[in-house]
Parts: sequence; structure tokens; C-alpha cells
Amino acid sequence: MGHLTAPAGAATLARDYQRVRDHTEALAAALTPEDQCVQSMPDASPAKWHRAHTTWFFEEFVLCPCLPGYTVHNSQSRFLFNSYYESVGSRHPRPQRGLLTRPSSGEIAAYRAHVDNAMRRLLESGGNYERDVVVLGLQHEQQHQELLITDMLHAFSQNPLCPAVLPGWQDAPLHPAETQFIPQPGGMIEIGSAGEGFAFDNETPKHTLFLRPYRLADRLVTNREWLAFMQDGGYRTATLWMSDGWAIVQEQCWDAPLYWRGNASNWQQMGAGGLAPLEWDAPVRHISWYEADAFARWRGARLPTEAEWEAAASDARLQDLTGRVWQWTASPYVAYPGFRPVEGAVGEYNGKFMVNQMVLRGGSTATPAGHTRRSYRNFFHPDRRWQFSGVRLAQEA
Amino acid sequence: MGHLTAPAGAATLARDYQRVRDHTEALAAALTPEDQCVQSMPDASPAKWHRAHTTWFFEEFVLCPCLPGYTVHNSQSRFLFNSYYESVGSRHPRPQRGLLTRPSSGEIAAYRAHVDNAMRRLLESGGNYERDVVVLGLQHEQQHQELLITDMLHAFSQNPLCPAVLPGWQDAPLHPAETQFIPQPGGMIEIGSAGEGFAFDNETPKHTLFLRPYRLADRLVTNREWLAFMQDGGYRTATLWMSDGWAIVQEQCWDAPLYWRGNASNWQQMGAGGLAPLEWDAPVRHISWYEADAFARWRGARLPTEAEWEAAASDARLQDLTGRVWQWTASPYVAYPGFRPVEGAVGEYNGKFMVNQMVLRGGSTATPAGHTRRSYRNFFHPDRRWQFSGVRLAQEA
Amino acid sequence: MGHLTAPAGAATLARDYQRVRDHTEALAAALTPEDQCVQSMPDASPAKWHRAHTTWFFEEFVLCPCLPGYTVHNSQSRFLFNSYYESVGSRHPRPQRGLLTRPSSGEIAAYRAHVDNAMRRLLESGGNYERDVVVLGLQHEQQHQELLITDMLHAFSQNPLCPAVLPGWQDAPLHPAETQFIPQPGGMIEIGSAGEGFAFDNETPKHTLFLRPYRLADRLVTNREWLAFMQDGGYRTATLWMSDGWAIVQEQCWDAPLYWRGNASNWQQMGAGGLAPLEWDAPVRHISWYEADAFARWRGARLPTEAEWEAAASDARLQDLTGRVWQWTASPYVAYPGFRPVEGAVGEYNGKFMVNQMVLRGGSTATPAGHTRRSYRNFFHPDRRWQFSGVRLAQEA
Amino acid sequence: MGHLTAPAGAATLARDYQRVRDHTEALAAALTPEDQCVQSMPDASPAKWHRAHTTWFFEEFVLCPCLPGYTVHNSQSRFLFNSYYESVGSRHPRPQRGLLTRPSSGEIAAYRAHVDNAMRRLLESGGNYERDVVVLGLQHEQQHQELLITDMLHAFSQNPLCPAVLPGWQDAPLHPAETQFIPQPGGMIEIGSAGEGFAFDNETPKHTLFLRPYRLADRLVTNREWLAFMQDGGYRTATLWMSDGWAIVQEQCWDAPLYWRGNASNWQQMGAGGLAPLEWDAPVRHISWYEADAFARWRGARLPTEAEWEAAASDARLQDLTGRVWQWTASPYVAYPGFRPVEGAVGEYNGKFMVNQMVLRGGSTATPAGHTRRSYRNFFHPDRRWQFSGVRLAQEA
Repeated sequence: MGHLTAPAGAATLARDYQRVRDHTEALAAALTPEDQCVQSMPDASPAKWHRAHTTWFFEEFVLCPCLPGYTVHNSQSRFLFNSYYESVGSRHPRPQRGLLTRPSSGEIAAYRAHVDNAMRRLLESGGNYERDVVVLGLQHEQQHQELLITDMLHAFSQNPLCPAVLPGWQDAPLHPAETQFIPQPGGMIEIGSAGEGFAFDNETPKHTLFLRPYRLADRLVTNREWLAFMQDGGYRTATLWMSDGWAIVQEQCWDAPLYWRGNASNWQQMGAGGLAPLEWDAPVRHISWYEADAFARWRGARLPTEAEWEAAASDARLQDLTGRVWQWTASPYVAYPGFRPVEGAVGEYNGKFMVNQMVLRGGSTATPAGHTRRSYRNFFHPDRRWQFSGVRLAQEA
Repeated sequence: MGHLTAPAGAATLARDYQRVRDHTEALAAALTPEDQCVQSMPDASPAKWHRAHTTWFFEEFVLCPCLPGYTVHNSQSRFLFNSYYESVGSRHPRPQRGLLTRPSSGEIAAYRAHVDNAMRRLLESGGNYERDVVVLGLQHEQQHQELLITDMLHAFSQNPLCPAVLPGWQDAPLHPAETQFIPQPGGMIEIGSAGEGFAFDNETPKHTLFLRPYRLADRLVTNREWLAFMQDGGYRTATLWMSDGWAIVQEQCWDAPLYWRGNASNWQQMGAGGLAPLEWDAPVRHISWYEADAFARWRGARLPTEAEWEAAASDARLQDLTGRVWQWTASPYVAYPGFRPVEGAVGEYNGKFMVNQMVLRGGSTATPAGHTRRSYRNFFHPDRRWQFSGVRLAQEA
Repeated sequence: MGHLTAPAGAATLARDYQRVRDHTEALAAALTPEDQCVQSMPDASPAKWHRAHTTWFFEEFVLCPCLPGYTVHNSQSRFLFNSYYESVGSRHPRPQRGLLTRPSSGEIAAYRAHVDNAMRRLLESGGNYERDVVVLGLQHEQQHQELLITDMLHAFSQNPLCPAVLPGWQDAPLHPAETQFIPQPGGMIEIGSAGEGFAFDNETPKHTLFLRPYRLADRLVTNREWLAFMQDGGYRTATLWMSDGWAIVQEQCWDAPLYWRGNASNWQQMGAGGLAPLEWDAPVRHISWYEADAFARWRGARLPTEAEWEAAASDARLQDLTGRVWQWTASPYVAYPGFRPVEGAVGEYNGKFMVNQMVLRGGSTATPAGHTRRSYRNFFHPDRRWQFSGVRLAQEA
Repeated sequence: MGHLTAPAGAATLARDYQRVRDHTEALAAALTPEDQCVQSMPDASPAKWHRAHTTWFFEEFVLCPCLPGYTVHNSQSRFLFNSYYESVGSRHPRPQRGLLTRPSSGEIAAYRAHVDNAMRRLLESGGNYERDVVVLGLQHEQQHQELLITDMLHAFSQNPLCPAVLPGWQDAPLHPAETQFIPQPGGMIEIGSAGEGFAFDNETPKHTLFLRPYRLADRLVTNREWLAFMQDGGYRTATLWMSDGWAIVQEQCWDAPLYWRGNASNWQQMGAGGLAPLEWDAPVRHISWYEADAFARWRGARLPTEAEWEAAASDARLQDLTGRVWQWTASPYVAYPGFRPVEGAVGEYNGKFMVNQMVLRGGSTATPAGHTRRSYRNFFHPDRRWQFSGVRLAQEA
């Protein structure tokens, strides 16, 4: 994992560690023990599980191999809180994570404290640990912070009481002028991580490719524009859709983004702050790739490729590249030329998901501060809607 | 519901009310908030939901119609905690009860207290309420006390930590001599509720039928006998099984009762007290009707009809008619001749389930004291295994 | 199978054999090779398979054990054309019968001729065969004659060309006066086969039971009456339905009998003669038990038990007891008291289906002449609709 | 569709038309009417349907718009034989194509003759038709010729009689020396159709991209090599597999290519010629992308991208680029930069499938002569196995 550049010093790393770990607990603080235990679909995990799994990551990949005399908090953690590392051994089935009423949230808090104490000892000892793996663990925990929000929102969206994952959270309007499609030159460009900071292995190696000129929308698609798509029969017009997408539209009766509630005269949206009137000038979110793609076709545009997105990402004319919604791209998630997963169990981190998923770029309102970057590749199956996923359009030059 | 005979006086009723309600809370006391929220399959309900639903029953069917000035605790209870009363209106979907992380267990406790206070006022006021409905509500709550145990056991059985629903609970052996098949005369007999105490409407009307002579086993089938069935290839011999049952055996790979764990050299059983070594002389339990029926065929016997069971139920030679396991019968659950459901929403209590299910008689270790009786008809689909269900055999005369 | 009474002499049996076998081929003659190969759902079988399976029955249970020197027509028949006899060995999976494009219809015709020749030799030889098994084979083939029609109709109903299974077949009206509910005395009655002719083992033993007085409708429910049920919201009123039935109504969007096509202003029905205008005064057919039961409740009546039907079956005031539609009863299909399946593989004929199904009595337009009788018990799962199933109502005395 | 270059003259086109159409009928000639009607899975279509659908294509897109006075053969063809053209209107559901026992094969033959007569008139008339659409229709029919074989093979593989789709067909060995990985320079290359002959729209536009140097195997992977993968536990080693693929391996119990039968001591393969001993030196086929990808990882190699395959396709050192098996690539099937579907209904031909599928390059033993080419892009979902799909490996330079 030599492509990772760790932060400057041990003290910085210890501070980062504390800050990231604290943020997870801050997110969980607004949730009851019951909230933290629920799993509303196989794709989602309980909040409690996110808290434990991110802790297990440090125990399994840092403390056990590197801290002499470390004793695991509970011998069953490896079985209960491994997510998908086949190399590590068998594990509790993913769709049944919600059945783990025990260990309790309180016991998970104790588990976190146990590991945090040991990690502090290790980080302060100047011991012989792999800094890259610690950094990876923190980046990993930040990913789960976003998932904790999206998974909890999915569960709360099915509760008639409409609780708030982030009490007080409110949607904010863009100030949307007419969309401008900003010309981009293309040509021989480099994409991928340049190595001046942390990057996941899937952002490497940095490599050259050739792009035709293209144009990229200066802003995100809004709810108001999405409503126009709906009113124009977007969800009922087969020719706008990929064949696989159209099958799902009909099977699941999609007729609006995932968390829209109501009807033509009164639309509301379930969000992190609970149920609220739809903010028409905010970016549309919680749409699948199929919907994003159909919308683009209806609009006489297309989705950008991930390379087009990344090549333009320092163009100051482009608004909200991050911070609001992840932006679906036209690119299937595949390995970059010359990609090699790291050795060992953490090599399972990204590579084995490189089929059937589409890349999203940017970052959302739920993404922890500082977590994302220009070369960051997020990815989900094209029918998934529970993430903070939206659209930025592109056009031919 | 004139066929119900209410207890002697108002004071008795108030005492019964308190006793039944307290027992529910005592069962829940050993459970964490997370435990009480989980739903491990569509057939099961969360413990918290049982506590709330039984409370809603009194609110909906007693307090709202009968207590002047009563205000409902929360206007959403009717939607959230109605089980299946179509007459009462729409309701939260059954398979999603486990998503209701809120209201919390604490809020459910407050709901129970609110209703209990009002019920005390009503019962002590000498007001104009239907005693039969109050009694029905208590019988109903007792049924849910058993379900709370069986549903929680089902959830705990899928947790690698194997928690105990009833900490300290232990299985007890029978003292099984060779099974005796006790002759019964048959003839013109009466079955059904005689009206000297509470009965559900499905136990009525009392009616006459004609039985051939038969013989009934003096004791329950034990785990030891079940093991012999297994070792003789019972689960692999198609000709022992009903056709629908054999399909399930193969599809779900049944090869032992639901909660048996381990293998030939070391069998354990998940029970109310957690995981424990199998007690060979205890009654087999957590078997489906299909298994009970196949076992009987293997044994050269058959299951008794429910009429045969009831006709013999005062024979002192028959051991453990109640208190250990419900006993599957050969009888599909249908209406007795002349059956009429009671008027109104509580008429949905039993009648609409009178197809596709099989009758069980007796009562189990999880059945509240005093709840069952000779004419009591329990019923489940023939593939269900999560109840405390076992076998008593019968033979031709 | 000593309870079967075979026809008088060998010559009669040989004539019966020829007549039944010819009728099967006559039914198939209107079908193309493609028609005979199709399987439109797992419950149905291809016409070609019916022709072969009934032939295999004679080969397996008569010729192989009884005709010295008989050689099987094709060693794979046992695998391909065994329906469900576990004792006979493994077999082609039922849902994949439609994949057997070969052997062709022509080869099946040759198989039938081979077996018929051998059967003639046997029947004329005065050889040592079990007459009861031959008679059972013929009764069995008659059952498959009805299934051939119902299965083919199900396939044709999904073809936009609406072909006719029985070209020229037309529905005929009843001459329905106001329904009369004819009083029946009940009391100690005997039901089951009296032994003066062929009967399946499930009709035995003849036994005594006690019936309360009741009343039975003198005629069948008509399409016109069914339309009134529909127009009164029958398919949208939960309280009319069994709980399991209501779940299916919603899941499968039932709003009319299976083969009704069109809408309020123009109803047609797919029938054996193809698509035709609905005959309002003909008996309603192709309804499930759930629908029959809900209709009866809506009408302030109930379904008769099978014992009530049989006890009244010689009452000349009751019209169309047979010849139009099978009549759903309130009785689950269970063994009669003292029932014993016959020894050997043919003992699997009926017994292993005695759970989860409901009894129908009578006989339909598709039932071969002379096949049914007063004690005849037909049975299907309560959600099945592709048989010629209808309703006769009953009421309390 | 201006990018298509039609053959030189009208006479050539008429000859091509006759030749392609005759080949379809030649393939069907070995099949019985029943064979031609069967549909063994939703992905497959009946042979009869392939014959009719390719005919409907000419009727819908050529004859109706271009031949004055043409009368459609049957007004229902548009409903019955439209495959997926949403613009053309509603159509018979794909999974139910096997239910269309009528029209018969004979009627389909008449339909073909009717259309062929009209097409001859049109092609000889010098009329005003779009040559490109006729050519597209012929290319389309050739694609269905391959599908007819693969679909029929899938059906026959489930028939215990193992019939032959192409009687007499035999697998042939490669003469496999040790695999050589042939170096390729990469650099700025052009891929896509150069426009000197027919190409589908998905092969356009021709465009430039940048490739790193790489190496491509000179030959296909053989059954013998595949067996080594199996014997080394390939199907049981999670870390070799994509996550989605590993889930399917377990769920569907994959342990060998689709049509392998038998076991370690005696492997056979179901092929176009029926069941035959496995030819160890023939290319492995009927494997999914997941299997191809896992095999490559096990072998210390990878799949080539489609650009790598195309860039090397004129390297004479590479054997069997076409004619044996389609070769899975590492490339998801997406639009080329600047891709625009043609206007009108035929624009649905390719574009709407550009998600969730993986590209295959080359051509198989079932591909009609002259149909494929260097720029040809075949595509299937990564779990599909019923095509003649195999593997050519690649490695980094």
C-alpha cells in the first residue's frame, strides 16, 4: 500500500484518530438503542453494527498484529463484525445483522473504548505499526459514517413517526440560474491519485487517457427540474430508459425519487431532518442511476464519464462539485489500467466489487468533512436509491 | 358474545386485570430495549409490539366506547398497533413491525400505564362496560404472553450469543415408561365449551359427534424417541411424509427439530434458558405438523383428532395433557357446526383463520397459568415450528 | 384394495379398457404436436405427458408384474412419466415436463399402441393379473382426461389467438328460478363408498357421523349472481374473506373469475370452445375456494360440508349435482376414520395429499361420463382456479 | 444509419437475402414442431419465435413502410413477434413465448414465404427502400441464427434424451502448445468501425484511445486447463471471485461449466451434437464472465479489455480469434464516445442495453459465416452461461 501517503507525524495521526472516532459517536448520540439495532434492508446495516465493525477493523488489522500483549475485547467480534473479508474467516450473514440485539449499544461503546485505549497506547508508543493501515481505518470509518446516516434514514423513512437522523438538519436551495454547459478541452489527460495524500487503491494507478472535447453543466439538477421530468411523463416513457431500468420502474412502480411523499399538489421529502416540504431549488437526490440516465436523455444531455468529471474538477465555474450530492457518472466501476489490489485481507477492500456497479463522483451532505477528493470513486449498483445521489449533466462539445 | 361467563365480581375482574398486565411486564423485564424491538421473521412480532398491541386492544374495544372523556394516548396507536382487524382500518404492515424503533420501550411503558390507569378507573367505577370484552382482552393478552416468549426465542436462536428469554429456565425430564395406548370408548360425545367459564368463540357451539373407539398414548413423545426416528432415516424417507411436507423437508433441509444444534455425538437445544444440552427424556418440541405426522406414521400410529383428544381429556391415566407442549392433532382448524363469529370487529378474532391451519390441543410450558382448558383450540399452519409444539400419539382400537 | 369391486367379466373389462383409452386419444386429436407439449404452470402437465403417464401406469403396475415376457417400450419411461410415486424411484421434475419436446406426440402414440397391444393380450389371456389395478388404471386415466382439458385450457387462455380445446363446445344456461334452500334432516348418517362399484381408497371406509339439520341450495350459483357480488364490491371487502384468501386477492389482483375477460360493459369468458360472450345464466366456474367462501358469506349463506353434500345427493329436488361444475365444500380433505392406504406404490395414490386441500363434490362438464359418483372426493388447494370449480350454497336449518 | 455501407448492388442484396433466409430454415429443419415451440428459460426464445421474429422485422421495418400495397400476413404478428421495440407498441411478454403453441411451425413457414415473396418483389423492383435497413435485417437474422442454436441447446440439455441441435456436430481439439503471451505495443490507437462494411451502431463512432503496452495470449483456454482450475479448488476459493460472482457460485452450486456432466473420472459435455465425451484440448465454453474472471486471477493473468482485443486483432500470431468461442473481455458494455443511436424504432437495437453487461469479442462455432468482424461487440450479463463463451487471457506488459 505504498501509494498511501500518511499524515506528517504520530501526534497528528493520534489527533486524527480521536477526531474521526468521536464523530461516529456524535452521530450515534441522537439515536436510541432501538434505532441503532434496526436493519431495514439487506443493503443497510444497523448503526450499532457500523460502530462495532469500524472498531473491529482496527482490532483485526492494527492491534492484533502490532500491539504486543493486546487482548481482543471479545472473541466473537471477528465473527460478528467482519463485513466481507473472506480471508479473515466466516462471519455473521449480512441480511441478519439486525437480529443482533446483543451485544447492546452500551457494550459496543465499551468495545470502542477498549480499542481506543489500545490504539492510543500504540499511536503514542512510537511502536512498529503500519501507518497506512491506520489511515485506511480512519478513511474506512468515515465511509461508514456516511452509511450510518443513509442506512438510518432508510429505516426512519419507513416509520410513520418520521424521526430525524440529524435533528435540525434542513435542505438548502441552490441559487439556480439557467444551467450553463461549460466547455472542456479534453485531450490527453491524467486521472487517478497523484499520491500527495491518502487515496484508496481503486484510485490508482494514475494514468493517461484521451478525451474528446465535451461540456459539463455548471450546476446540479434541482427538484424543480425533476418535477418537470415527472410531469412530462418521464416515468411512463419507455424509450427514455435503459431496458433493465424500465423493467424496475414497472416492477417497483417508481414514479418519483425514493423519499418524495405526497402528490402533485403537495410534495414533501423525507430527509435527515425528518419529513419536510420539498425544497424546489435544492438538488434532487435519492435517485438511481437508471433515473439519472433517463433524465439526462429526456433533457437532451447525457451523464459525464468519471474521467470527464475528474478532468474538469478544478474548473471554478462548476458549482457544488462536492458537499451536496454524489453525482452518477456514465462509467461502470472497473479497475484502472495496471490496478493491483494490496496484499492481504485489506486487498479485498475495493477490487472485488468492480463489476455491475456505476461510479459516482463528488461527495454529499452526509460525507464527513475532508473525506472526499477529486480522484475519489464512489460506486453503487444502478438500481440503488438510498444514497445521497443526484445528477450533473454533460453534453457533447 | 353471550357465551362468555365473566368472573364473579368487579373486584375480581380488577384483580385479574392487574395480575395479567403485570405478568406481561415481568416477561419483558429481562429484555433490553433492542431485544424488544427485533422481528426475526414475518410470523413473529417484537416484544414491544406485543406489549403495545395488547394495550391498544383495551383502548380500542373498551376505553374508547365505554369510558366517557377518555383521550387516546397517541392518535397513531390505532395504525401502529392494530394487528389484523380490517374493520378498524388500515395498519402498519406486519412484516415491518421490527422497523418501529420508535415509539421506544419506555414510551410503550407509558402507554401501558396510561391505559391501565383508565382501565382501573373504569373497572372501579361500576361503569357501563362489557365485561366480556374486558375478559377477552385479558385472554388475548395471555395469548400474546406466550407469543412474546416464542417470538423472542426465535430471534435469540439466531444470535450467536444465545441469550435466554427466561433466564434460569431449564428443561425437565418426563419419567417415561413404555408408552401405553389407553383405550377410549368413543360413541356419541359432546365437544366444545360447556359455558361454565370463559371460552373463545371458536370453541362454540358445544355439539355432538360420533366417534369410533380409539386408543390414546398416555404420554408425550420424547427427544430420545425422536432421535430414533432421525437415526432410522425419518427425514430421508419420502413415503413417511405428506407430499407438501416432503417438499419442505427437501427445500429447507430439515433434519432435526427447529432448535436442535450439533450432531450425533453432541446434541444441544436452544431453549428459553439459552443453549443447553438436550434433555433426552423431555418432550420433543418445536416440530411442525408435517414432522409430527411423519413420526406417527413411522411409529405405526397416527395423530389423534381434536375430538378424540378432548373426549379423553379427563382420563387421569393421560399424563401431561397440558403444561409441557401443545399437541398437534389430525384435525384441520374449521368452524364447529353452527359457529357464528360475534358481531363487530372482535368477530375477526378467530373465524377468518379457519383454513389451512391445523389444531393443537393442550398447552405448553410457555402458556400462562390458568389460560388453557379442555376445549381450547390452538392452531398454526402445518409447516410452522417456532411454537412449543409436540406430539401425543393415537391408534385405532 | 379388496374394497374395489371389479366389473363383471373379462370381456367387459377389455371393452372398458378400449373405450377409455380411445377417449383420451379422441381428446388429443384436436391438438397439434406443439399444443400437446406445452406446460403453462407447474400445476399443469402437457397433454402429451398425460397420454404417456396414463400409459406408464399400466406398464408399471400391470404389465411388468403380470405379463410374462413383456418388454418395456422404452427404459426411460419410468423416469420420464412417473408422476409422484416415490416408491418407484426418481423422476423428471414436475415443473419441467414442458421441456420434453421429445419423445414426440407420434412416439407417444407408438408407446400407447405398444402398451395397448400388451394389455389386450393380457386381458384376453385370462392371465393372472389384479383386476383391481386395471380398473384403477382406467379410473386414473379418466382423471387425467379431465386434467388434460383443464391444463390445455389454461395454456390456451394465455395465447392471444384463444384456441379451442374442444372445438364447438358451448356454455349452456341453467333455467334459474329463485334459489330454494331445501331442508335436509341430518341425524346419524353414513357416508363413504358402500362397496357396490369402484371407489378410490379415499372414499373408504364407509362410516357413521352425526349431522345437524341443514338446508342445501337446489341449484348452482350463476355468473349473473357472481356479477352482483363483484358489483357490490365483493373483491374489495376484506371482511368477507378468510385472511389467507384476502392476502392472495390483493397480491394477485383478483377481481373476477379466472377466465373472465373484459369489463362491465362487455364480459367474455375463455372456455373449452375458445373465447365467447359470457352466458349469464350458466354456472360460475374457475373460482377458488377462497372466492366461493367469500361469496357464500356475502350471500348470508355458507358452503356445505362434504358430508352434507353426500347425505343429500339422492334428493331429486337438487339440480345439477354433477355434469356442470365441481362444487367446493367447507371440508378440508382428510382421511376418513379408519382409513388405510392400500399396500405398495399405488398406496401413494391419495393419502399423501390429505393436508392443505379442500374437498369438491359433484363433477363437471369436463368429467368423463360415468366417472363420478355420490361418494367421490375431488380435492384442490384453496387458491387453485383452473379447474371447473363452482358453488352450491348451504344454510343452517 | 448513414454509417452503414450496403453491399454493391441490388442483385447482390437479393442473393444475400435468400442465402441468409435459407440458412435459418436449414437450421430449423432438424427440429420437430415441439422442439421449435419450447422456451427453457426467460432468456431463451423458441426456435419458431426466432423464425417469426426475424420475419416480422422485415415486414415492420421494410415492407410496411416501403412496398406499396403490401398487406401484412397476420395482424397479430406485430403483437406476437415484436421482441423489445417499445416504439412499435405493446407485445407478448417475453417469458411466455413458449406458450404460443399456435401459430404452428407450418404457419410460420407460410409467414416466412409470404414475406420472402414480397421482399423479392421489393428488392427486384428497384423500389424506394432503405438498403441499410434490409442489411440490418439480415445481420439481425444472423444474430438470431446463433441464438436459435444456443437456446435450443439449453432446452435439449434439460431433456434426458440429450437430442442434437446440429446432428453430427463434433468438438475439435486445438493443438495447444504452452500459451504464449504475445506483446502488444499499445499507444494511441483507433477502435470502432472504419465504415468499409456493415457495422452495428454500437461499433461507432470510430475513435481514438490510449493504451498501455500489454500482452495477449496466443490461444484460447482449454477444457484441460479448466479442469486444473477446478481440481485446484477454483470454485471453492472465495478470494478468486468478484463478490457478486461468489454469491452466485454458492447460490447455484456452480462447480463446472454449464454443460459439463459427470465427475472426476468421466466427464462429458452436452453440445450441439448431443452428449459426448469431453474433448480436453478444445476451448472451454459455456462459462460466465464471473468464471472467466476468476480463472484469469487464478492463472495470474487477467481478461483483456475490448480495446486491447481489437487493437491486436490483426496479429497473425493470435489463434482462433473467431470461429470457436466468444471471448469475454474486462470491458463493461457502454456507448463509445459520441455514440448516437439511429433515429426511429431501430434505434432501440443496441443502445438501451448499455448497462450491466460485459463485452465479448470474436465469434463462435455457432456464429454464421461472415457475420462477425474485428470491431464486433457482443454482450451479455456477467452471470450468463448458455452462449458459446470462453476465455483468452491477457497480462501486463
